Amino acid sequence: MRFSSPEHRERSRGVSLQRRPGQLVIVGFLGAISVGTLLLLLPISASGEPASFMEALFTATSAVCVTGLIVTDTPVFWSGFGEAVILVLIQIGGLGVMTVASLLGVLVSRRLGLSSRLVAAASTRTVGLGDVRRTLVRVVILAAVIETVVATVLTVRFAVTYDEPLGRAMWDGVFHAVSGYNNAGFALFSNSLMDFVADPWICVPIAVATIVGGLGLPVILEVLRERRGPRHWSLHSKITLLMTVLLLVGGTGFFLVTEWDNTATMGALSTADRVLASFIHAANARTAGFNSVDTGAMHTESWLGTVILMFIGGGSAGTAGGIKVTTFAVLGVVIWSELRGDPDATLFDRRISPATQREALTVALLAVAIVVLPTLWITALSPFTVDEILFEVASAFTTTGLSTGITASLAWYHQLALVVLMFIGRLGPVTLGTALALRARRRLYRLPESAPIIG
Amino acid sequence: MRFSSPEHRERSRGVSLQRRPGQLVIVGFLGAISVGTLLLLLPISASGEPASFMEALFTATSAVCVTGLIVTDTPVFWSGFGEAVILVLIQIGGLGVMTVASLLGVLVSRRLGLSSRLVAAASTRTVGLGDVRRTLVRVVILAAVIETVVATVLTVRFAVTYDEPLGRAMWDGVFHAVSGYNNAGFALFSNSLMDFVADPWICVPIAVATIVGGLGLPVILEVLRERRGPRHWSLHSKITLLMTVLLLVGGTGFFLVTEWDNTATMGALSTADRVLASFIHAANARTAGFNSVDTGAMHTESWLGTVILMFIGGGSAGTAGGIKVTTFAVLGVVIWSELRGDPDATLFDRRISPATQREALTVALLAVAIVVLPTLWITALSPFTVDEILFEVASAFTTTGLSTGITASLAWYHQLALVVLMFIGRLGPVTLGTALALRARRRLYRLPESAPIIG
Ligand SMILES: [K+]
Ligand SMILES: [K+]
Repeated sequence: MRFSSPEHRERSRGVSLQRRPGQLVIVGFLGAISVGTLLLLLPISASGEPASFMEALFTATSAVCVTGLIVTDTPVFWSGFGEAVILVLIQIGGLGVMTVASLLGVLVSRRLGLSSRLVAAASTRTVGLGDVRRTLVRVVILAAVIETVVATVLTVRFAVTYDEPLGRAMWDGVFHAVSGYNNAGFALFSNSLMDFVADPWICVPIAVATIVGGLGLPVILEVLRERRGPRHWSLHSKITLLMTVLLLVGGTGFFLVTEWDNTATMGALSTADRVLASFIHAANARTAGFNSVDTGAMHTESWLGTVILMFIGGGSAGTAGGIKVTTFAVLGVVIWSELRGDPDATLFDRRISPATQREALTVALLAVAIVVLPTLWITALSPFTVDEILFEVASAFTTTGLSTGITASLAWYHQLALVVLMFIGRLGPVTLGTALALRARRRLYRLPESAPIIG
Repeated sequence: MRFSSPEHRERSRGVSLQRRPGQLVIVGFLGAISVGTLLLLLPISASGEPASFMEALFTATSAVCVTGLIVTDTPVFWSGFGEAVILVLIQIGGLGVMTVASLLGVLVSRRLGLSSRLVAAASTRTVGLGDVRRTLVRVVILAAVIETVVATVLTVRFAVTYDEPLGRAMWDGVFHAVSGYNNAGFALFSNSLMDFVADPWICVPIAVATIVGGLGLPVILEVLRERRGPRHWSLHSKITLLMTVLLLVGGTGFFLVTEWDNTATMGALSTADRVLASFIHAANARTAGFNSVDTGAMHTESWLGTVILMFIGGGSAGTAGGIKVTTFAVLGVVIWSELRGDPDATLFDRRISPATQREALTVALLAVAIVVLPTLWITALSPFTVDEILFEVASAFTTTGLSTGITASLAWYHQLALVVLMFIGRLGPVTLGTALALRARRRLYRLPESAPIIG
């Protein structure tokens, strides 16, 4: 029952031209992962035996997709050269995804006719080289500034308090600043940040870097530029910032309650350090993936809470993963307005269109399916418990990288499944979300309406 | 930013009048549960020591809400009188929910102006006594006919093949026919239907009763009355029947694969009996709650598959629970049309309105929250594993009644949580779904639209 007019066909062609960037991106990421795999396979990359193909592929994918899941102990297994390869892959992946998502966001904004701050009064509906260059420059400058500040703080702390030689302190500082801002979660300590659980001068700068990187470029730029105050921010920025605060505060409180007396994690710490540790876990659960307490020793309910935070993730067009806080907020608003009997779903005095509601629904339910089905499959064919597996699968798909510790012990085909999940999780929601927003077929005939009984 | 006109206020009053039936229903169900609890507390109801308050409350709620979760071994703990009380509670609960949901459905159809088969050309927007009587008569006749047929088949089988005395065979036949058609899942055998895993003459009639009862009154009546063939059925009936077939076939295949070599369940059976056992589990997972294999001995992945089936549930305005197959189908269609870039969500050449889409989204996501949050809470405060707890919580909320075996061992406050979940699960979706469909505020002002980035 579909009819195709000349206008319709022309629209379709226009759309496919616009979607070409999305395909380019996929090829670009696959290329980076391939080159990274080859480099990590070199004997010079490992400190002992060279890496196996699976170890190299998994690590390269985890780095490019800024996930942080590992099958090898980063500081022990890889040489300085290998660590540098990982660092470069993280930086390419993080800058890449931020640039790409922002550019795709430009396309979407143009179609919707919004006066997005990102769009410099352009009226064409394709992304030109100028857009790419401008966005890339902004992304690089922003990364350089924030990573330099955080790296400096960390370097001083590593050198002064932990008596590291200056070269070592700088390497540690730079690596964790880059890994933090790009939400990669790779660490140069075998137990991640567990030695620094009570040291806010290490944990907090990294957490701040992850939170800022996770806000996404549109929000960062708007906050930096819109000097008339928060009331003039776009709906997107308001939602992202409000949700970020709510999730950080709520997450901190949640883990404080669930882990309060768990001596294997934070039970032995002072109250202030417990608050710090809970905050750090809440911040990292939202996609960064460092841990200052032993994730594997946490209670199951903390794992489930972490899965929920991972699933929601961070801001769009940033280095965070998950379905994104805007998606989550839109769904919440839709439910709330539905319960109130309000025909419009509104937030901050703005109406959210049915099209946006449908995009949010689609992204969220597909994400549920993409997490649940591999969890089922791995549960059926591995000795691990379903909570461990759900955690690992959600961590891969949301590119968080927190781990209960089972990833290295999984069968190769399950590790390969995690590789695929990291890739889908990193690019899927971005390209999918944009594709959904860009596609708009027209029907020349509308079918009669019918209402099946719901509930 | 809301404005209230006289017309708006009048509309609100109209709505609250219409919602009174919903409140009556809640009071009615609470009354039935209270009386049932008191009766089950009588010494005459138990075969040994009288029931504790929690045992009586839990059993009465489970019976009225046609769930089938138990904290006592039905045939051992309760006397014949106690079993009769349970049977009457099941029948009242089952007839009640079917009548009520159908009546609320009439209200919804009238608002939407549909020519529902249920609505005898009435034009008022309230439910009159005539409606109530007519619907109740249909519900009772339907139950009487189907339960009599199934009870007869079962009685003959129990008497002839299992050499039960006629009185005993009739009681077993009637009890399981009523428990089946009303999707209650209470059995008079300590191991449910496990002794009959290879006997299609016991398992299949009960399964057919559960499936038919789970279709819902509107579908049953339409199939019986619309003699022009399936093409003339309403969208609601088409979706319900198609989904029922798909879920039964898919579920049978799934459990056949996951439990094939599980000797603790069906691994020792012949191939044909494995197919039968898988079909019986698939049918019962969709809300009936009998089991012909040991649910507690199933693999975790089978539990997860069961949870998914329980969650989807059966048809609206029947004795089934869950979010309902129509809700699930509508969400699937929305995602599919979104991925295709189609502005309309269509199925069987009918368009599904944004309002219906929002109802489905709300019912499904609230259900997810209602299952996940108690699972978190019980996991935090009990020694059981998260998969066991998720199964039990989902079973209570979807009024399925299948069990991994932990319910009787839960703390009293967790049992109480299950009681509340059974009640919410039985009436929540029905009254909520209807309330959502009935409420329609108007805004005199529409706010400007804004589109946050999704995904
Ligand atoms: K990460
Ligand atoms: K049941």
